Amino acid sequence: MPELRQDPVNGRWVIIASERGRRPTDFDTAPAVESNGFCPFCPGNESVTPDTTHVIHDDADQWQLRVFPNKFPVLEVEGDADRSGEGVYDRMNGLGAHEVIVETRSHDEQLTDLSLDQIGQVIRAYQARYIDLKRDFRFRYILIFKNHGEAAGSSLAHSHSQLIALPVIPKRVHEELVGAKRHYDFKERCIFCDILRQELEDGRRVVLENEGFAALSPYAARFPFETWILPKEHQSCFEHLSDEQIEQLARILKNLLVRLRETLNDPPFNFMIHTTPAQDGPNGYYHWHIEVIPKLTKVAGFEWGSGFYVNPTPPEEATTFLREARTEREF
Amino acid sequence: MPELRQDPVNGRWVIIASERGRRPTDFDTAPAVESNGFCPFCPGNESVTPDTTHVIHDDADQWQLRVFPNKFPVLEVEGDADRSGEGVYDRMNGLGAHEVIVETRSHDEQLTDLSLDQIGQVIRAYQARYIDLKRDFRFRYILIFKNHGEAAGSSLAHSHSQLIALPVIPKRVHEELVGAKRHYDFKERCIFCDILRQELEDGRRVVLENEGFAALSPYAARFPFETWILPKEHQSCFEHLSDEQIEQLARILKNLLVRLRETLNDPPFNFMIHTTPAQDGPNGYYHWHIEVIPKLTKVAGFEWGSGFYVNPTPPEEATTFLREARTEREF
Repeated sequence: MPELRQDPVNGRWVIIASERGRRPTDFDTAPAVESNGFCPFCPGNESVTPDTTHVIHDDADQWQLRVFPNKFPVLEVEGDADRSGEGVYDRMNGLGAHEVIVETRSHDEQLTDLSLDQIGQVIRAYQARYIDLKRDFRFRYILIFKNHGEAAGSSLAHSHSQLIALPVIPKRVHEELVGAKRHYDFKERCIFCDILRQELEDGRRVVLENEGFAALSPYAARFPFETWILPKEHQSCFEHLSDEQIEQLARILKNLLVRLRETLNDPPFNFMIHTTPAQDGPNGYYHWHIEVIPKLTKVAGFEWGSGFYVNPTPPEEATTFLREARTEREF
Repeated sequence: MPELRQDPVNGRWVIIASERGRRPTDFDTAPAVESNGFCPFCPGNESVTPDTTHVIHDDADQWQLRVFPNKFPVLEVEGDADRSGEGVYDRMNGLGAHEVIVETRSHDEQLTDLSLDQIGQVIRAYQARYIDLKRDFRFRYILIFKNHGEAAGSSLAHSHSQLIALPVIPKRVHEELVGAKRHYDFKERCIFCDILRQELEDGRRVVLENEGFAALSPYAARFPFETWILPKEHQSCFEHLSDEQIEQLARILKNLLVRLRETLNDPPFNFMIHTTPAQDGPNGYYHWHIEVIPKLTKVAGFEWGSGFYVNPTPPEEATTFLREARTEREF
């Protein structure tokens, strides 16, 4: 079973994937994306992946979207956390869930190519799996994310997203929760709502907006062309998305991804959904959102050593480029 | 002037390098490492780099090591911080220093190839520049780091390290300071001293040790083959290194880098020195150290979204591989 270990100084948790036990030569240069022509996510190869936890069929009764446990999970679903100490150290079992959302049956279509209906189905699949997994009280946080392109860590070209359920609240999210709570305790307002109000009035960092959502270049963006999508009305929990919001989110997400593709020549990117911890109820201080980060620059010693980031493209300029991108039609 | 901006939710600072203003097409694929044959760090090309702040000559009066301000600094040395707010946001001028330490006059020798005397001179150069820059009270933290290899963010092949002086204490260091202080307030012991005591007794994660230093695979290593070098006796400030310690550090650093090169086929890597903030005095709770991280895995959506890391090589196994690496001689 994988093991979770905590850094005794800064509290950061690390998953030590003992079973994988990668030896020095395993890191040599084999391309991450499969090249032998076999794709485990393609129609006809369903038997090589675990049983589905969620599936959508089209009118011809062919599957259109499939969700199943990752065959090589970073965390395992059976057992309990079994927290224990070892001198100054803390550890627990690598308990969790790790699922794959195959977004389309077509090997060659990317998320950006899908219809608004299909993108809506992907968001619905995220929501359905989230709601099902949060019933398991062992899971304190559920992270939904997507890696697109090899440089962004994708190991299979067939378009997919992932979901990892964790037995602890991750550090990055914890920091946001603490910061948002501090603001709320002092001002009794959600800091993300304050940011939205200021940005929508100012306009210089608003990439896109529709009735329900805004896409902003964050004021202190870590990466060039980093863009966040937030619901315009306060909403603390991603899983509370209404049908109407799902349709709006599909539109703004597709619009943003098309613009990133046009502006940056199909860049590798990651996106991840940040939301309230799974076992907490709705609240006034946290505001769920999606962070989209194109992978255009390298993270080096300065960034690893300091936690500072150097962003060579001011967010205001990124906004202008994305707004001016030519897209076939408006969404 | 570059601008420092703070994320209003989690407090992270970002350097927005406005002057660089990289446009979308600037990110297309040009190799980072120079390929036109001209090296600004080679002997004969001294006139293209700024004036040296530190230089070591050999017996033939040829320079052997040169330190000078980075020609394309991420922060600028003139002016003041001029902190100001902008609604919910905080910013300041990108005040700081950014220097380059060219470690050898030879274009083809890497740090690992240098003699122990030469590596000692590199450490002495770090120390001299650190002591000089900390006299400027505007600089609250001075980070010394090295990027080796293109994948680790190095843009020039000629062996060099860098130093960046910052007007704020970076988040990663702040977290370590807070964690170390919490331990000290409770136990009146340095947590790094506690870790060293436990590790040296246990032995499973001790890669190397000499009279003054130990090289450990951290219990919760983020990356495969991540290794930390720590002084065995408590020392809070890097700049207090004695002559004897410099000789010991040169030996263990060379030994470790040779073993990483042999074990992992000359991997790209970063190292960075973590020490007490420049304007703070010596203290009982923080213990300076060097973090060496080979760049073998990709950071993807899960890591960016959570701050969790997945390490596929248990630190105990990494230790064994590094210990068993064949090196020409013992140091």
